[in-house]
Amino acid sequence: MTMTSTTTIPAAPAVPIRGALRPLGQTEVRITGGFWGRRQRVNGSATLSHIEARLESEGWLPNFDLAAAGTLPEGRRGREFSDSEVYKYLEALAWEIGRTDDPALEQRFRAIVARVAAAQEPDGYLDTMFGRPGQDARWTNLEWGHELYCLGHLFQAAVARERTRPGAGDGLIDVARRAADLVCDVFGPGGIESICGHAEVEVGLAELARLAGEGRYLEQARLFVERHGAGTLAEHEWGRSYYQDDVPVRDAEALRGHAVRANYLAAAAVDVAVDAGDDELLDALRRQWARTIARRTYITGGQGSHHQDEAFGDDWELPPDRAYSETCASIGSIMFTWRLFLADGEARYADLIERSLYNVVETSPSAEGTSFYYANTLHERVPGTPADPDATSPRAASSLRAPWFEVSCCPPNVARTFASLDSYVAAATDDGIRLLQYAPSEVRTVVGGGTPVELDVETRYPEDGLVRVTVHADAEFTLGLRVPGWASGALLRVRSADGVSERSVDPGFAEVRRSFAEGDVVELELPVAPRISVPDSRIDAVRGCVAIERGPEVLALESVDLAPAGLDDVARVVLDASVAPVERDGRVWVRVGVLPADESAWPYGQATDASSSETFDVPLVAYHDWAERGPSTMRVFLPVM
Amino acid sequence: MTMTSTTTIPAAPAVPIRGALRPLGQTEVRITGGFWGRRQRVNGSATLSHIEARLESEGWLPNFDLAAAGTLPEGRRGREFSDSEVYKYLEALAWEIGRTDDPALEQRFRAIVARVAAAQEPDGYLDTMFGRPGQDARWTNLEWGHELYCLGHLFQAAVARERTRPGAGDGLIDVARRAADLVCDVFGPGGIESICGHAEVEVGLAELARLAGEGRYLEQARLFVERHGAGTLAEHEWGRSYYQDDVPVRDAEALRGHAVRANYLAAAAVDVAVDAGDDELLDALRRQWARTIARRTYITGGQGSHHQDEAFGDDWELPPDRAYSETCASIGSIMFTWRLFLADGEARYADLIERSLYNVVETSPSAEGTSFYYANTLHERVPGTPADPDATSPRAASSLRAPWFEVSCCPPNVARTFASLDSYVAAATDDGIRLLQYAPSEVRTVVGGGTPVELDVETRYPEDGLVRVTVHADAEFTLGLRVPGWASGALLRVRSADGVSERSVDPGFAEVRRSFAEGDVVELELPVAPRISVPDSRIDAVRGCVAIERGPEVLALESVDLAPAGLDDVARVVLDASVAPVERDGRVWVRVGVLPADESAWPYGQATDASSSETFDVPLVAYHDWAERGPSTMRVFLPVM
Repeated sequence: MTMTSTTTIPAAPAVPIRGALRPLGQTEVRITGGFWGRRQRVNGSATLSHIEARLESEGWLPNFDLAAAGTLPEGRRGREFSDSEVYKYLEALAWEIGRTDDPALEQRFRAIVARVAAAQEPDGYLDTMFGRPGQDARWTNLEWGHELYCLGHLFQAAVARERTRPGAGDGLIDVARRAADLVCDVFGPGGIESICGHAEVEVGLAELARLAGEGRYLEQARLFVERHGAGTLAEHEWGRSYYQDDVPVRDAEALRGHAVRANYLAAAAVDVAVDAGDDELLDALRRQWARTIARRTYITGGQGSHHQDEAFGDDWELPPDRAYSETCASIGSIMFTWRLFLADGEARYADLIERSLYNVVETSPSAEGTSFYYANTLHERVPGTPADPDATSPRAASSLRAPWFEVSCCPPNVARTFASLDSYVAAATDDGIRLLQYAPSEVRTVVGGGTPVELDVETRYPEDGLVRVTVHADAEFTLGLRVPGWASGALLRVRSADGVSERSVDPGFAEVRRSFAEGDVVELELPVAPRISVPDSRIDAVRGCVAIERGPEVLALESVDLAPAGLDDVARVVLDASVAPVERDGRVWVRVGVLPADESAWPYGQATDASSSETFDVPLVAYHDWAERGPSTMRVFLPVM
Repeated sequence: MTMTSTTTIPAAPAVPIRGALRPLGQTEVRITGGFWGRRQRVNGSATLSHIEARLESEGWLPNFDLAAAGTLPEGRRGREFSDSEVYKYLEALAWEIGRTDDPALEQRFRAIVARVAAAQEPDGYLDTMFGRPGQDARWTNLEWGHELYCLGHLFQAAVARERTRPGAGDGLIDVARRAADLVCDVFGPGGIESICGHAEVEVGLAELARLAGEGRYLEQARLFVERHGAGTLAEHEWGRSYYQDDVPVRDAEALRGHAVRANYLAAAAVDVAVDAGDDELLDALRRQWARTIARRTYITGGQGSHHQDEAFGDDWELPPDRAYSETCASIGSIMFTWRLFLADGEARYADLIERSLYNVVETSPSAEGTSFYYANTLHERVPGTPADPDATSPRAASSLRAPWFEVSCCPPNVARTFASLDSYVAAATDDGIRLLQYAPSEVRTVVGGGTPVELDVETRYPEDGLVRVTVHADAEFTLGLRVPGWASGALLRVRSADGVSERSVDPGFAEVRRSFAEGDVVELELPVAPRISVPDSRIDAVRGCVAIERGPEVLALESVDLAPAGLDDVARVVLDASVAPVERDGRVWVRVGVLPADESAWPYGQATDASSSETFDVPLVAYHDWAERGPSTMRVFLPVM
C-alpha cells in the first residue's frame, strides 16, 4: 500500500487516510448523462420527494417533533430503527445538494436538520424510541434496539454534509459530534463493553474521525469492531452469527449472518484497519471478501440467501427463487468493496461494484423511482399483485416493487447511493487517474502533487461498448481504464497528433502513460455482446442452467415476453444452448424450447424427454428492468435443453 | 362412498361415521415386531420417559400445578403452546397403555391427568398462559395465543384414552368435555366469530363429537373450518395464508401457508365433510391433496419449503438444502391423508403414508429415541455440532438431532404417532381386509357383519420384499394387499390345499377373494431392489440430479461413507448413472466420480469438465438413519455426472 497525499478533503463517501487510490469528490468528478445520469435525475427529483413524503406520513420525521415537544412516547410511530431512515435521507439530500446546488433541497435539508437537532437531549443522546419515561431505558436492548445503528447513519449524514458544504452552519455536524462524544463516553474504555446488534455506528464513527481529525472516534470504531465475536450480545435462535458476534472479525473466513450487518461491519473494519495501519486485519478482510464473492454471491452481485434471517447461507447455497439479495446488502457490499478498492486498487473490486450497481441497486427502484424492491429474487414463479401505491408493504412479500415498507431501509439507502455515485466513477493514483465506471462524465483534478488531469468521457455504455476519453490539459500522467473481468477481447486505442495506435487489453486496468496533449483521445472498446455464463457446479440450485449476460447487465426471461409464443409462464421453457444469443431490434434473443407438461400424480419418477420440443426465439430483458411491464414470472437462470 | 357399519368403536386415532374403509383399533390389529415393532418398543420406553422428564424440567407440566395453586403468572415457563405438549404426551401414553397395558404408564397417566384437571377453571377454561390477573385475557390473541390449539390436543388425548380404556374414570374425558362445551359457548353461533391461528381444535372437536355422539361439537368444528378464509385474523407480513385465513377451505387449490396448520386443518375438514355429508368439500380436499402431493411435496413425503414461516412454497419450490420438512407437518399430512384414505380407500393415500412414515417420521428420532429432528433437510452442506444433551435447542438450527427444543412440538407428536401406529397397518372393507403397511402383525376382526378374519403377517420388510400372510380362520372374504406405486413387477402368490397359484400384480390393491381355510397363505413379493428416481423438471432446485430409493426408503449419500475414498464432503461427488445401483453386504452401492475443485474467484463463467473423473463405488444410507454416526454432510439428490 502506498501513501497518497490529499490536498483537500474530497466530497466523497469514504476518505481513508492512506491507500493505493485517492477518492475523488463531487468537485472533481461528475456524471453528466447516460444510464447513470438518468437514474441520478430521477433519484434527485421523484425518489427524494417520495421518500420525504413518506417519512412525514409514516410519522418517522414527526417523531422528532414529538421528542422535542416532550410528549413521547405517546404518538410515536414506526419501528425501532425509523430514525435512521431520516438520517439516510439527510445523507442523500446532502450529496444531492452537493451535486446540484438546488436551493429548494437546501431549504428542505435545513428544515429537517432543525427538527432533528431539537430532539437531541442535552447530553447528546438522540433516539426517539428510548430513554424517556414510558420508554425502555437507553442502551438496554443492544441486540435489537438499533440506537447505535441509528447514530451511525446520523454520523454518515453529517460527514456527507460537511464534505460537500464545509462550514454550512446548519448544525448537523454539531448534533453528530455531541452524539459521538456521548457514544465514546458510554461505550469507551471503562464503559459498556458491548456492541450494537446492527453494525453501522462503526463506519459512521470512522468517517467522522476522518472528518473531524478526532482520534477518539476512530478508537471507538476500533473497539466496536474488535468487540464483535466476544459474545457480548445474547444468544439467539439464529445464532450469534446473525449479528457477527460469533467470531472475531479478524478470525472469520467469510461474511456470514445478516447480510447488511455483515457488510456494514466489514466496511468499518477496513476503515479501522487502514487508518490504524492494522495489516493483519486488512488481510483477513481481503480473504473474507474473496471467499464471499467466490461462494456466497449471486450472479447479480446480490448477497443473502435466507429470508428468515436476511442472512448469508452456507458456501454454495444460492437459491435463485429464495434469493433474498436485499437491496441494502448490496449497498453494504459496495461500501465494503469500495474501501478495499481504495486500499488495494485492484480492478476486481470495481468489477463487483459495477455488477452490484447494475443488477441490484438499479433493480430496486422502478424507472419512475417511486417504488422499490426490498428483496431481489432471481426467479419468480408466481406473478405478483401490484402494490397499493398508498399502502405500506411488508418488507419482502411482494414480487413487484412497492412504494414503501414497514422496514423501509432500502429506499433512502438507494437514494444516498445514487446521489453519491459520481465518486465511484474514477479515482486518483499517485501519478494518474483510473476510470472505474463508464458513464458520460467529467474529471477535473490534480494528481501527483501538481499535474492537472482534465478528462471528458463520452459513452453510450452499457448499450454500446465504446468509451471515448478526451484529454483537456497538456500533462504527463497515467490513464487507467478498467477492463471488466468478463471483457475478453477488449481493445484500447489512442488517438493523438502522432496518429492512432491500438492494442488488445486484458481484464484489469489498461493503462496509457504519456504526455497527453489537449484533445488526445483514448478509446476503450468493450465487447458487450451477449454471453452465456455457466454457474459453478457446486451452486446446486442452478445446476443444468446458464445465465445470459450482456456487458455488465444480467439478463432475464420474463413471461410477458412469452405471450407471442402463446405461453404465460417461464416454468417449462428451456434454452437451446447450441444457438448463440443474438442482438436484434435492440434486444437480446435466445432460442428456447418448451418441456411437455407432465401431470404425474407423483413428481419423482422417470425423466421427461424434451428432445422433440419445437424451438423458437424469445427476447430477454435486463434484469434491472424486470416487472416494469406488470405482473410476470421471471427467471435469470435458464435450464439448458 | 359406501356405508360401513361398525359394531364397536375401534381404539383408533380417527373413526369417521362413514367411509369406504373402517379403521381397525388396537384390539383388532397389532404390530408384533420388525422395523416398526422395534421403533414402537423404543418409543414406549426411552422416548416417553425422555419426554416426561423434559416436560417436568422445562416447567411445562409444573405450569399446571402453579395454575391449580393460583400463583400464576409468576413462575410460568415455556411458550404459549406448551400446554399442548403435555396433552400430546397424554395422548401418546393413552395409545401406549392401550397397546401394552403397562401399569407403570397407567399410573403416570393418571397422575398427570390429575394435575391437568386441577388447573381447569370452574367454567371449563383451561390454559396456563391466559386469563388470570397479570396475564392477557382469554381469547384476546387468537392469531398467536394457541388457546384453542392446545384444547384441540386435549380433546385428541381424551378421545384416545376413552377409545382405548372406555370408562376408565381418570377424569380426562370430563375435563375435555367441559372445555369443549365452553368452546361451543364462546365460539358458537352468536359468539366470537373467529378461529384459532393454529388449526387443531377442529380435528379435536370432530373426534370428540364422534366419541361423545355430540352434534354440537361437530357443528363447532364445521364452523371453525368454514370460517377459515373469512379474514377474521389480523393481516401478517407473511400473509393470511400462513394460518389458512386467506381463502375458504372449499375454494383453495392446494395446501399453503404454515405446513402443520394446513394439514391439521385439512384433516379436520375431511372429518367435517365426511360426517356432515358435504361431498363438495370432500372433493375440494381430494383436489388439494393431489395438487399438494404432485407439486409441493419432497420425495421423502416431507412438506414445507420455507424456514421463515415454516410454510409451503409455491408449486415446484422444493429446495433440498432449505427443506423445512417439519416432522410435525408430515404427521399432519398423515392425519389428512389417512382420513382421505378411510373415505375413499385408494392405495395412493396409503402409499404417501408409508413414504412419510419411513422417511420423515422415522427420520426425526434417533435410534435411541431421545433426540429428534424438528426440520428434516435433504441436503446438509456443513456438518453440525452434536447438541448438548442437557440443553434446549432452537427449533431448526441443528443439522444433528437435539434432545429438546424451545418449540418442542415434534417429540410428543412423534411419540403419539408411533404409539398409535398399529391402526395404520390394516383397515376393513365391507367384505374383507386391506393390508396397508407391512410389518410382522396380527389382525383379528370381524367383517361384513359376521365373517371372522384372523391373519398373521410375517415379513422382514423393508429389508426384504416378501410379505407372508397366513389365514387362521375358515371364512370367505377379500384380502387386499397394497402394492406401492413404485413396485412394478410385484408378484402375488396363494398357497392353499389347492396348490400354489401366482400372478403379477400392478400398483394399487392386489385382491384375493376366496373361501380361505385355516393355514392358507397369501404371499406378496415386492421388488425392493434399488431404483433411480428422476425429479420432475420443474423442481428447479434438483435439476440434473436423481435420488436412489430402495423399497419405501429414500437413500442418501453421507460424507462419513466417503472417508475410505479420501473425501470428507459430499459437495463435489457426482453419480455415474450409467452404472445401476447394486446391493452388496447389506448396503446399496452407487458408482460416483468427483468434480475437480475449481477455485475461481468468480463462480459464474465456464463449465467444469467432469468427464475425465475417475469413478469408484460408495455405499448409501437410508435417509432415516443419516447423522447416526456423528457429524456429516449429506445429500439425497445426487448430481448426475
